[in-house]
Amino acid sequence: MRAGTSLISRVDVTPVAFRDPPLLNVVGVHQPWALRAIVEIHTTAGSLGLGETYADEAHLARLRAVADALLGQDPHDLNGLRRLVAATLGRETGGAGASFGGMLDVSSALDTVYSPFEVACLDIIGRESGHPVSDLLGGAVREKVPFSGYLFYKWAGHPGDEPDDWGAALDPDQIVAQARRMVDGWGFGSLKLKGGVFPPDEECAAIEALRAAFPDLPLRLDPNGAWTVETSLQVADRLGGVIEYLEDPTPGIAGMARVSAGTDVPLATNMCVIAFEHLPPAIAADAVQVVLSDHHLWGGLRRSALLAGIADTFGMGLSMHSNSHLGVSLAAMTHLAASTENLTYACDTHYPWKTQDVIAKGVLEFSGGEVTVPTGPGLGVELDRDALGLLHEQYLTCGVRRREDTVYMRTVEPGFEPNTSRW
Amino acid sequence: MRAGTSLISRVDVTPVAFRDPPLLNVVGVHQPWALRAIVEIHTTAGSLGLGETYADEAHLARLRAVADALLGQDPHDLNGLRRLVAATLGRETGGAGASFGGMLDVSSALDTVYSPFEVACLDIIGRESGHPVSDLLGGAVREKVPFSGYLFYKWAGHPGDEPDDWGAALDPDQIVAQARRMVDGWGFGSLKLKGGVFPPDEECAAIEALRAAFPDLPLRLDPNGAWTVETSLQVADRLGGVIEYLEDPTPGIAGMARVSAGTDVPLATNMCVIAFEHLPPAIAADAVQVVLSDHHLWGGLRRSALLAGIADTFGMGLSMHSNSHLGVSLAAMTHLAASTENLTYACDTHYPWKTQDVIAKGVLEFSGGEVTVPTGPGLGVELDRDALGLLHEQYLTCGVRRREDTVYMRTVEPGFEPNTSRW
Repeated sequence: MRAGTSLISRVDVTPVAFRDPPLLNVVGVHQPWALRAIVEIHTTAGSLGLGETYADEAHLARLRAVADALLGQDPHDLNGLRRLVAATLGRETGGAGASFGGMLDVSSALDTVYSPFEVACLDIIGRESGHPVSDLLGGAVREKVPFSGYLFYKWAGHPGDEPDDWGAALDPDQIVAQARRMVDGWGFGSLKLKGGVFPPDEECAAIEALRAAFPDLPLRLDPNGAWTVETSLQVADRLGGVIEYLEDPTPGIAGMARVSAGTDVPLATNMCVIAFEHLPPAIAADAVQVVLSDHHLWGGLRRSALLAGIADTFGMGLSMHSNSHLGVSLAAMTHLAASTENLTYACDTHYPWKTQDVIAKGVLEFSGGEVTVPTGPGLGVELDRDALGLLHEQYLTCGVRRREDTVYMRTVEPGFEPNTSRW
Repeated sequence: MRAGTSLISRVDVTPVAFRDPPLLNVVGVHQPWALRAIVEIHTTAGSLGLGETYADEAHLARLRAVADALLGQDPHDLNGLRRLVAATLGRETGGAGASFGGMLDVSSALDTVYSPFEVACLDIIGRESGHPVSDLLGGAVREKVPFSGYLFYKWAGHPGDEPDDWGAALDPDQIVAQARRMVDGWGFGSLKLKGGVFPPDEECAAIEALRAAFPDLPLRLDPNGAWTVETSLQVADRLGGVIEYLEDPTPGIAGMARVSAGTDVPLATNMCVIAFEHLPPAIAADAVQVVLSDHHLWGGLRRSALLAGIADTFGMGLSMHSNSHLGVSLAAMTHLAASTENLTYACDTHYPWKTQDVIAKGVLEFSGGEVTVPTGPGLGVELDRDALGLLHEQYLTCGVRRREDTVYMRTVEPGFEPNTSRW
């Protein structure tokens, strides 16, 4: 430790809840409240760095244990931070305890717990040196980051509530209408449909309706492993000339490899390759052609840059995954995407689906489907303390403590089972 | 470009020459002068960053072309720097034009030309933010970096010269004596013998003599591809319990894969995997178990960190390669190694073989075979202007303009051919 170094003096972990529409997916439906945790790291030099992550109870407990262990650490020592997270988690690393609603099987909590602290430390390093986080990752190669409009099948409203202002989207026409609003409001230049909700024929029809309505926009379909290998190949055949990639048609590296061997449609994943240990077998089997990065899951921005380098080295395309998130995450995603030369596809984002945020307005606005990369020091976003307080209050009172899409779905359809490999 | 940013205002590329002993290898013998280029980048804020690289004529011309193109650039924008190097080189990227004495076949000059400028920019970023370069790479995970004593067969002196003070090393006893001096003088905790000079039996005998003289030190043998696959397997069998790895016993990924399939001795390389494009075929063939990183060759410190991440992901060991070099390179190597968690083997260095340097004394001293990682801003080394002037003067007068081990060997043995796959 060097004299004059700014050291970590306080760490706050604040769980927040914000309204989330009833978005349907392979494991059920989004609950009325989405949870996130906001991490604030203060330093002896008076700096404040921000991070954002999942907020399921088990994950929160781990975040808080790490927060307590961070006092006195040098925020520049990211390798030391990672070792400290590993030491703090100790044997408690089985299962991420994080917010995937049963959709992902995350084998280690280290990367997910480390991530928001790494981002907050990079925010501090940037603020203290006067440089944006994109500079710390090698420099922005683009001034604006393209995002994809993320379409969901959805109910008109949560059970017992009035319809929300998006309304129902349960057939091709309603999906096209939702897409129209996404494109008109945010300017998205590509569209992704979350599938795995209805039989593949219906979801293919929705994609074909989108193609007819938006002849020039790249389209993606992501059924989150709802199909068998055979069905995946049938869909790939039907949509081959229509979609830019098919995301996780079937579960697992072995299944994806069988699909991959039978089609020229690029296969993307955020399910079978979600950690570095999955890369060697997936590459050996040529199971996927596009990896979806996600700094929350892959251990922060620098390890996501490593993933990008691996994708580049092995000739894989790169896109970016999204869970329901707020502005601190969007800022981190934007800096990462800005500094990633081989971002070959527009990033996913759930951002249009939320109506509240914890950051001060005026940055990270969408225009033409893109977000302008902040050029101020650090992440370039500031907390709105009133908003943070409100969303924390919502967390305290909403009653949701973990993401449980299947449990929530069963309050409406008691016999519901996840659609994994169903069709 | 942001207001108040420190921009590149001047770039100097200074070729230098320093005395090099007649070290023997597969392609011939080291010339009496080793060449390096020192890169100095000045900024509008008054900072100075240092880099060091090869200085063969073709490489120097490319360095100078890039130097001219750098004025006004932001040293933080490393991605932009790389694009600028690529644009400057244009179509002139075939062959590295760099100093490998015919030993390596480098397909692109981009990484080798980019490297010293990247290091100099990292030196500037560190100096301006008050942090050592190891911090910019994620933070030092070790306070001292272990290096391996690098043993060479050698003549007593250059033809026509008096013997140098190392004297001849042409048989096992002389190699053991050389090793004794390396261990006594620098404290090395492991030893590497550069082979490919004599028939494998003699080199195996030298390794066995080293084992007898230094029972506890890890040993390595590197014949630079001098052997056939069959010979490599025989040597692996003979030295299996003695060496920690065998480096490049035979040329090429296919040949190395055949050796690898027939032995449990780990195979290392700095010949068949020297660029990112070589990683996929080498990994697919399980051709190597240890990769030797080299930031001069792999495109600087950040891309070497990417290589380390790939090695970690794919379960490969990691060591570090060395050419004849001066202190700026040693500083960069030390910061890189310090911040690389998975540096599984001590680094190579030619440092003990040189008698002159361009950096001010007092840092980068060897103790116990290790170099203490500088903790001051940037690389932590300063130029000795008098020494730089002297070594540049030596460059101007020595007559050597490129590394030509084979040409020089033929002045002594007119019919000499490189020993590649000879035995």
